[in-house]
Amino acid sequence: MNNFEFKNPTKIIFGKDTIAKLADEIPSDAKVLVLYGGGSIKKNGIYDQVKSALKGIEYIEFGGIPANPEYSVLLDALKVIKDNAITYLLAVGGGSVIDGTKFLSAAALYEGDTPWDILTGGKPTLKGMPFGVVLTMPATGSEMNSGAVITNKETKEKLGMGGAGLFPVFSILDPQVITSIPQRQLVNGITDAFTHVLEQYMTYPAGALLQDRFAESIMQTLLEVAPKILKDASDYDAASNYMWSCTMALNGLIQKGVPTDWAVHAMGHELTALYGIDHARTLAIIAPSHYQYNFEAKKEKLAQYAERIWNVTEGTLEDKAYAAIEKTEHFFNQMGIETKLSKYTDTYEGTAEIIAKRFTDRGWLGLGEHKSLKPADVESIVRMAY
Amino acid sequence: MNNFEFKNPTKIIFGKDTIAKLADEIPSDAKVLVLYGGGSIKKNGIYDQVKSALKGIEYIEFGGIPANPEYSVLLDALKVIKDNAITYLLAVGGGSVIDGTKFLSAAALYEGDTPWDILTGGKPTLKGMPFGVVLTMPATGSEMNSGAVITNKETKEKLGMGGAGLFPVFSILDPQVITSIPQRQLVNGITDAFTHVLEQYMTYPAGALLQDRFAESIMQTLLEVAPKILKDASDYDAASNYMWSCTMALNGLIQKGVPTDWAVHAMGHELTALYGIDHARTLAIIAPSHYQYNFEAKKEKLAQYAERIWNVTEGTLEDKAYAAIEKTEHFFNQMGIETKLSKYTDTYEGTAEIIAKRFTDRGWLGLGEHKSLKPADVESIVRMAY
Repeated sequence: MNNFEFKNPTKIIFGKDTIAKLADEIPSDAKVLVLYGGGSIKKNGIYDQVKSALKGIEYIEFGGIPANPEYSVLLDALKVIKDNAITYLLAVGGGSVIDGTKFLSAAALYEGDTPWDILTGGKPTLKGMPFGVVLTMPATGSEMNSGAVITNKETKEKLGMGGAGLFPVFSILDPQVITSIPQRQLVNGITDAFTHVLEQYMTYPAGALLQDRFAESIMQTLLEVAPKILKDASDYDAASNYMWSCTMALNGLIQKGVPTDWAVHAMGHELTALYGIDHARTLAIIAPSHYQYNFEAKKEKLAQYAERIWNVTEGTLEDKAYAAIEKTEHFFNQMGIETKLSKYTDTYEGTAEIIAKRFTDRGWLGLGEHKSLKPADVESIVRMAY
Repeated sequence: MNNFEFKNPTKIIFGKDTIAKLADEIPSDAKVLVLYGGGSIKKNGIYDQVKSALKGIEYIEFGGIPANPEYSVLLDALKVIKDNAITYLLAVGGGSVIDGTKFLSAAALYEGDTPWDILTGGKPTLKGMPFGVVLTMPATGSEMNSGAVITNKETKEKLGMGGAGLFPVFSILDPQVITSIPQRQLVNGITDAFTHVLEQYMTYPAGALLQDRFAESIMQTLLEVAPKILKDASDYDAASNYMWSCTMALNGLIQKGVPTDWAVHAMGHELTALYGIDHARTLAIIAPSHYQYNFEAKKEKLAQYAERIWNVTEGTLEDKAYAAIEKTEHFFNQMGIETKLSKYTDTYEGTAEIIAKRFTDRGWLGLGEHKSLKPADVESIVRMAY
């Protein structure tokens, strides 16, 4: 097991009808900006629940944060924060709204020249404006971690940011919100959370027995509840396990003491930036090719995953490892997710070269758990995913 | 899954040679009281490591906190805190030293008549004096939770306390400390951690699939590493998994959203108070009888545990459930732990009545996950454990 540090101060308030507890968590003298997305919360009743819970607290609203939170829109929100002397942020949404709020939390207190530096300077944010979350869509885990990904439409870039100052003060997780999520988003959420676990698990054995088992627990639970919530999102037990699994998949716990990969995300982000493909679907496109390309480096963990998650007991270690990749791809396909880029765009030719060049230009010269993947490897992996 | 709230702000610093990082975690203007136990840290080198790491920080020492931290000794330490205007506490030890430090953290800022109230008033401590931990013995999980158990020798009582103000600010966990722990204490630690998981798991199915799997992950890991560390405590991979499992067994995570029992601890504490039996051994004495006595209420989870932890696949649900109790008792016995009270004391007759009466006197009228166990049930369970 590798040395590690772990601290996660976010308070989780989980369960039925917990949105009503909102006002207990926000200081009574706060001036709040409530942030949300495209307005679905106005149709599904969550907006009304939040409004009623905020009774007695001073707040204004900023709606319209798009999926893949867009830098220029966030600059508009930043102006609202400054103009109105806002002291507290409340994200009501899924990963995009929460990530956008994290950027604003950092930008509101940023003293440098331009907030763009937060995304390109590579410096962690140690202090942000305090913010809470009402989670409307489980998937990204952003509700209990300190990282965010922001999109710049103009430059077609997705850039990461984060730091110890960007954990939500609290996050309210009511699994009942799942009933109003469209099937496509549910499928995306399951795929996203499952791939988050894979990124922190599918590397090489590192003697971290407990972390491996925790990662496997999350994948087993996601596989068990996926068909149930896709059939009936009002199945509360399935919904609550789904929601808690998404949070635990990326709150830092399972990545402590182990090597992590994240190359699937790095390549996937480019597909979203280039073609606007849903984030989760880009992961499902890249992951199988990535595991095949890096088969030798990952085969021990692939085989362990085959045995413990997919109950593959026959064959050699290599047989099991191959079976694991197939089963994973089949799992995505079964939920209706295509795992080849050519199913999403006709103009896929040349994508591999474009992405490899972008990585070269950015100086991303060593991806994966061994930091050994060069742009030429990226090019091969993306081409395998055509 | 039940509604829950979860917040655990303790910073964990885990791994080889991490004690050297101590000074980074303590404010440079702090006046520190370093607390430790019987002095084993002076023989195994931990004392010297701490001393060298504290260079430049103002501190004094208080040694001699006994196993089952004793109220009268802690009052002496409290006087040292007040007399020297101490502002920060550092526990260097196992569960007893950490629990004692938590009491002192609360008592140092307590404004009531007598600190005894903290143990009997039933009020959670929301603010304590900040304290850190250097863990010298994994077992109790106290290094990452906000609870403590304090002993009053005079009245032969063990009393619980805690509250959101009593999480350690940081805990340093270096698995190398395990090499100097006597075999008896290692066996106790494994038993203690394993029973902690059972108390939060062996109840009834509550639809918390992920929490069940996390609990099972910890038990599987403990079973896998136990023979390895008992054979060779310098097996770093085994030691690190053991240490992290003990912490995860009682840091709040696996108890969220599920019913919990804790009757085994309640009865076990009385055996320690009456006969001075090691805490972990009292749990091994009580647990098998408790599960047999409450067989009907617990048989579904007993059978799930039999299947997933002990690979019992044959027989009816009841057969599996019985097998699980046998396997658990056998596991304790195999490590050299006796599971009958009569092996520890000749004067065991009457113990059941004494404990039942104590519970009655204290008004503990409903124990267990259903709050249904009456003193008469306690009497029967303890008698079954003779």
